[in-house]
Amino acid sequence: MLLKKNIPIGYVYGKIKYEILAVAVYTLIINVMYHYYDINYISIPLAVPMVLGTVLSLLLAFRSNQAYDRWWEARTIWGAIVNDSRSLGRQVLSLMNEPIESEDHRQFQRRFILRQSAWTYALAASLRKQDPLKGLENKLSRRELNYISQFSNVPAAILKLHARDIRYALRKQWINPYQQVAIDQILTRLCDSMGKCERIKNTVFPATYSLYTHFTVLFFIMLLPFALIDIFGAMEIPLVIAISASFLLIEKMAIHLQDPFENKPTDTPMTSICNTIERDLRQMLHEEDWNMQKTENKPQPAYYVM
Amino acid sequence: MLLKKNIPIGYVYGKIKYEILAVAVYTLIINVMYHYYDINYISIPLAVPMVLGTVLSLLLAFRSNQAYDRWWEARTIWGAIVNDSRSLGRQVLSLMNEPIESEDHRQFQRRFILRQSAWTYALAASLRKQDPLKGLENKLSRRELNYISQFSNVPAAILKLHARDIRYALRKQWINPYQQVAIDQILTRLCDSMGKCERIKNTVFPATYSLYTHFTVLFFIMLLPFALIDIFGAMEIPLVIAISASFLLIEKMAIHLQDPFENKPTDTPMTSICNTIERDLRQMLHEEDWNMQKTENKPQPAYYVM
Amino acid sequence: MLLKKNIPIGYVYGKIKYEILAVAVYTLIINVMYHYYDINYISIPLAVPMVLGTVLSLLLAFRSNQAYDRWWEARTIWGAIVNDSRSLGRQVLSLMNEPIESEDHRQFQRRFILRQSAWTYALAASLRKQDPLKGLENKLSRRELNYISQFSNVPAAILKLHARDIRYALRKQWINPYQQVAIDQILTRLCDSMGKCERIKNTVFPATYSLYTHFTVLFFIMLLPFALIDIFGAMEIPLVIAISASFLLIEKMAIHLQDPFENKPTDTPMTSICNTIERDLRQMLHEEDWNMQKTENKPQPAYYVM
Amino acid sequence: MLLKKNIPIGYVYGKIKYEILAVAVYTLIINVMYHYYDINYISIPLAVPMVLGTVLSLLLAFRSNQAYDRWWEARTIWGAIVNDSRSLGRQVLSLMNEPIESEDHRQFQRRFILRQSAWTYALAASLRKQDPLKGLENKLSRRELNYISQFSNVPAAILKLHARDIRYALRKQWINPYQQVAIDQILTRLCDSMGKCERIKNTVFPATYSLYTHFTVLFFIMLLPFALIDIFGAMEIPLVIAISASFLLIEKMAIHLQDPFENKPTDTPMTSICNTIERDLRQMLHEEDWNMQKTENKPQPAYYVM
Amino acid sequence: MLLKKNIPIGYVYGKIKYEILAVAVYTLIINVMYHYYDINYISIPLAVPMVLGTVLSLLLAFRSNQAYDRWWEARTIWGAIVNDSRSLGRQVLSLMNEPIESEDHRQFQRRFILRQSAWTYALAASLRKQDPLKGLENKLSRRELNYISQFSNVPAAILKLHARDIRYALRKQWINPYQQVAIDQILTRLCDSMGKCERIKNTVFPATYSLYTHFTVLFFIMLLPFALIDIFGAMEIPLVIAISASFLLIEKMAIHLQDPFENKPTDTPMTSICNTIERDLRQMLHEEDWNMQKTENKPQPAYYVM
Repeated sequence: MLLKKNIPIGYVYGKIKYEILAVAVYTLIINVMYHYYDINYISIPLAVPMVLGTVLSLLLAFRSNQAYDRWWEARTIWGAIVNDSRSLGRQVLSLMNEPIESEDHRQFQRRFILRQSAWTYALAASLRKQDPLKGLENKLSRRELNYISQFSNVPAAILKLHARDIRYALRKQWINPYQQVAIDQILTRLCDSMGKCERIKNTVFPATYSLYTHFTVLFFIMLLPFALIDIFGAMEIPLVIAISASFLLIEKMAIHLQDPFENKPTDTPMTSICNTIERDLRQMLHEEDWNMQKTENKPQPAYYVM
Repeated sequence: MLLKKNIPIGYVYGKIKYEILAVAVYTLIINVMYHYYDINYISIPLAVPMVLGTVLSLLLAFRSNQAYDRWWEARTIWGAIVNDSRSLGRQVLSLMNEPIESEDHRQFQRRFILRQSAWTYALAASLRKQDPLKGLENKLSRRELNYISQFSNVPAAILKLHARDIRYALRKQWINPYQQVAIDQILTRLCDSMGKCERIKNTVFPATYSLYTHFTVLFFIMLLPFALIDIFGAMEIPLVIAISASFLLIEKMAIHLQDPFENKPTDTPMTSICNTIERDLRQMLHEEDWNMQKTENKPQPAYYVM
Repeated sequence: MLLKKNIPIGYVYGKIKYEILAVAVYTLIINVMYHYYDINYISIPLAVPMVLGTVLSLLLAFRSNQAYDRWWEARTIWGAIVNDSRSLGRQVLSLMNEPIESEDHRQFQRRFILRQSAWTYALAASLRKQDPLKGLENKLSRRELNYISQFSNVPAAILKLHARDIRYALRKQWINPYQQVAIDQILTRLCDSMGKCERIKNTVFPATYSLYTHFTVLFFIMLLPFALIDIFGAMEIPLVIAISASFLLIEKMAIHLQDPFENKPTDTPMTSICNTIERDLRQMLHEEDWNMQKTENKPQPAYYVM
Repeated sequence: MLLKKNIPIGYVYGKIKYEILAVAVYTLIINVMYHYYDINYISIPLAVPMVLGTVLSLLLAFRSNQAYDRWWEARTIWGAIVNDSRSLGRQVLSLMNEPIESEDHRQFQRRFILRQSAWTYALAASLRKQDPLKGLENKLSRRELNYISQFSNVPAAILKLHARDIRYALRKQWINPYQQVAIDQILTRLCDSMGKCERIKNTVFPATYSLYTHFTVLFFIMLLPFALIDIFGAMEIPLVIAISASFLLIEKMAIHLQDPFENKPTDTPMTSICNTIERDLRQMLHEEDWNMQKTENKPQPAYYVM
Repeated sequence: MLLKKNIPIGYVYGKIKYEILAVAVYTLIINVMYHYYDINYISIPLAVPMVLGTVLSLLLAFRSNQAYDRWWEARTIWGAIVNDSRSLGRQVLSLMNEPIESEDHRQFQRRFILRQSAWTYALAASLRKQDPLKGLENKLSRRELNYISQFSNVPAAILKLHARDIRYALRKQWINPYQQVAIDQILTRLCDSMGKCERIKNTVFPATYSLYTHFTVLFFIMLLPFALIDIFGAMEIPLVIAISASFLLIEKMAIHLQDPFENKPTDTPMTSICNTIERDLRQMLHEEDWNMQKTENKPQPAYYVM
């Protein structure tokens, strides 16, 4: 289960503090000019920022929608990874029909399921541009680690090891040809999820929209003090700051949501998800393999801390 | 069939009664200041809350859309659970080809179908953070209950028992390998539905949007009395309350809809759905197993009351 | 092919005639007060209903979108039922490989295909809360009718008969195990369509949205005459009626579209769809079974009238 | 590849020329009244059409969205028909494993692939309410033509011939049971595409929305000259015509897009798509069947002209 | 992994420089007329462009949404091509069960996987209307090149070679019938992706919407200087330029996004994607076929430069 990590508001406000300061100073200067130097003619009708505000709302709505969709798609893909990992575990344990349970067979299941857990960690790390091999030592054998370290795309290499093992199981007649095809379909779905994550990671939001929205926000904020000064006088300073903060905030939010694999607090919680998958897979496995449980739990207690 | 439970309006209004009271007092104070102390200069042009109202409408529309989508997705997932439970029941009864109907075989079908009903109750309970084992005594054997109580994810453990039984049926040659793969696909779909529910349950709506929308609503309500006082005078009090209530209400609605598994009246009606599934599955079963029907109906009549 | 039944406009207008009358009287009273008693101060600036109108447009757009989506989803589900019924018919006729065409085999195909037609009628009737068994006498045998009348969910019972017959065909070796699985997948899709219809039927649109929209419409209409009286004078009466009628109408439309299985003129045309399916299935069948055609066409000519 | 047929703008303007003329005369009359008879009091504030314009924009946006979705869905369905026709061709040529290529087998492949091309033409014609049998003489045998002419739903009858031929191929052991199921799945997809086209063809857009939008457009245009006359004087005539033309045009566009199978220039380009499919399928076929190519190209050169 | 190519802003601005210049000159002329010739009556109220601006925002939002959806769909299709290419590679390497690895078998796998890479380049080139055969020499044999050069649709021809090779593998008994069907499903998905790209390429965005939006933008820009001149005087020139540039820019952006296969900087980065696929496939292959790696890397180092 994923942690209900609240996105730290302080963190987001921290990101816009310089903008807020600039807005405050800017509005103050205009007020000083207006009141002390009597430059009254700088006031403009409220209708000008009003129409800009409407346009801006539509632009921000468009942008927020697309950013939210990217974020939610990322979340959905990782949800699918959870489901497919569990289904793969279930299939490896239940589709393999061997009359006599051999040690070789049990080792195979254990290796396969731990490797699936390794795959999720490797995918999360490579999406975050971290070392995908880190922390896989207790999930993969030394030989497997050596093998996958030769590839630039580590998760793809792990899937290849999966495919190889399934072929091995077919040769050993632990699975029949249908079951091979059924398990291979889950691998195809995992491969699809991996590709979808890469697509979101590597496709930038069209830059013109971002830029245009940003300029319109700035333009709107620059006009605002001139429009409110006649009505509110010095009271306009907190008002302008509050309105500017809202627009800047919602823009920042969209920027964060649209890139959901960037190691920021608003990210897809991939580490938590990987931990959940590992816990579920290990529990599936231990039960089949009950004797090993006690000795094994000790080396990696960290994974059960969420 | 699900109950046409109306979402109790009184319940929702109850939630905003303190806000409404605060708005009433606030507007009254402003009116007193305006009329009795002649502080007329506090009036502001209507255009200011008007532009805020437009922005707010767009924000609330965005938020309502996303909240509604989450709620409808939750409902669709539980609709899929109904469909897959029925299909699983049908497959267990019809895909198993045994020339001579043995008592063992019949027991197997009965156990499997009741376990599917148990799965739905366990999933509903664990999504609502209740004890997932409660009420499963008449659907699972003591041994199965002991087994699943060892797992932290009870519904996943029940699916594992399903998978095990399918392997057993294959070994007994009650099903052929294709049929095993076909039934396993339904298990994969159930596993997907479970994961999707967890995704919705555990992914919070981006906090910044919620917060920003909330602040904009408050800000709008705070400006409203100043803008309407010139036009409506004391008549503005009910007007401000009515408009404020509308905006607060629609915001509250979005908050409730966006978390559809929280044991609130606006929830996905999981208990009703589980009852429907149980009724349909039992009816499927009884018919095949007609003799048991009369004696069995008695212990759990509550399930047929909807 | 479905009938291009226009939704009767008169019917919908009939539904709002009392509201329209009330609006007319209300506006007339305000006019009389304004012109004959010179109560001029009741006039309010146009900006007030203007901002309300914008909010209302967004609310109605949200509501119309969701209602339209429900209606279109219902229509799409019934489109899928047409497709799956045809595919099932094709599969029953072409996937069954029997070297020598026996009378038993032909009877089987005929029974199966007519039962599929019966399923569509039963589903339509149970969604409309009508007797699902009515009119099935010439499509099902007496024994089948007796059987399904024991179930509360009649369409599910018919699907169960389908599944049983497929098992029977497998035992007779009319189909091979793959073909059984392929036909069973169509049954799963039909079961899904049935569940989706029930989901739409049994899930109410969130009541708060409906209520809030309704109150905002009323509030808007109540303010309108005060805003237009200064500009249009007595000419405002038809204007207010026209604008009110538009908003009331669009709201009513959304209410009708959002419940697409309620036996109203805007409904999903389920009876026409069922007739089309029956015609297509019978044509498929007769051709295989040409000799029966002439004698059989007589008893149910009504089905060919559309 | 589809032709990049531009939707003829002149054609669309032609459709609104009477409306434009009416608007011109109407605005002229109002101008004459205003200037020559000094009826100045007919002027109304700009705010009235302004709020109507906002509402109208939202209505037209809703309508354009739904119309565009229908049009795009129709286009997507025909895209799927292209894909499935090619896949079917590929499967018929490559899934059939016969050690010795017999003449009978080659004839079978040729007949099957040409029949698939015939299916696309028949579907296009029946969606446009034209004679579905026209032009199929060089794609189907006389016997097949006689057969399908007995059916009211010609494309469904062609699919049935497909299914029959697949059964024949299975009996001849040209394909194995899996391959039969795999090809049958493509037939199911074609059957789905056919049903989806019929759904779009036969489901009218909710009439109330159309009507309401139309009335609001008219109402807006009728108010416009009164609102602009004070500001622009006689200059308002081209202005009113330009604005009216825009709104009328966008409404007409929605009406055309929402019915994508009506033989209009904005239609789904079904004939071009059918030609493309035929070219691709014939090229697939000729290559396997190289000797026939030269003699055969002559009778139907028209199909290669796009 | 795709390159994070920023869409060059300068490039887009370059496209609107003539429009910007025209707007500047136009506004200047109006200012000169207003200030030096005292033609004050040309000023119009701000409300006129304001309402146009709202309508325009909705139109541009609709257009941007549809254009973005086309662009994102194109990107998603190419993401699916990446996934399916990897899955195909994995299946060719792992589903083929041969007890003794023969040279013939290894050659087959190598040829198949390189051909898949060739398919992606050919598809990208034919979507951009370039020579699809260019650069395929080191991925296909001379015989294959000769073969596919006879077809007008080169990617379809390559898929046909794939299908042929799968049939060959079945005859050689390297794969069993299930595996053939499983691999054929991937071919069907590739065929679908190809057809979807062609659909987007060949379906123009409805011309009336484009035209109407363009005219409304021009009309809005033409009215703007008249509305702002009273308020801002000569200061309006930069203001009008800034607002015009924004609207023109967002319109241009939509035009570029809506045609994602046109060889422009905002295109789907097909060449990068093809390079990534080639790198991944070659890495898969080399590993199985380790001895060849060193000698082969030399001829095409360019593909590894991204």
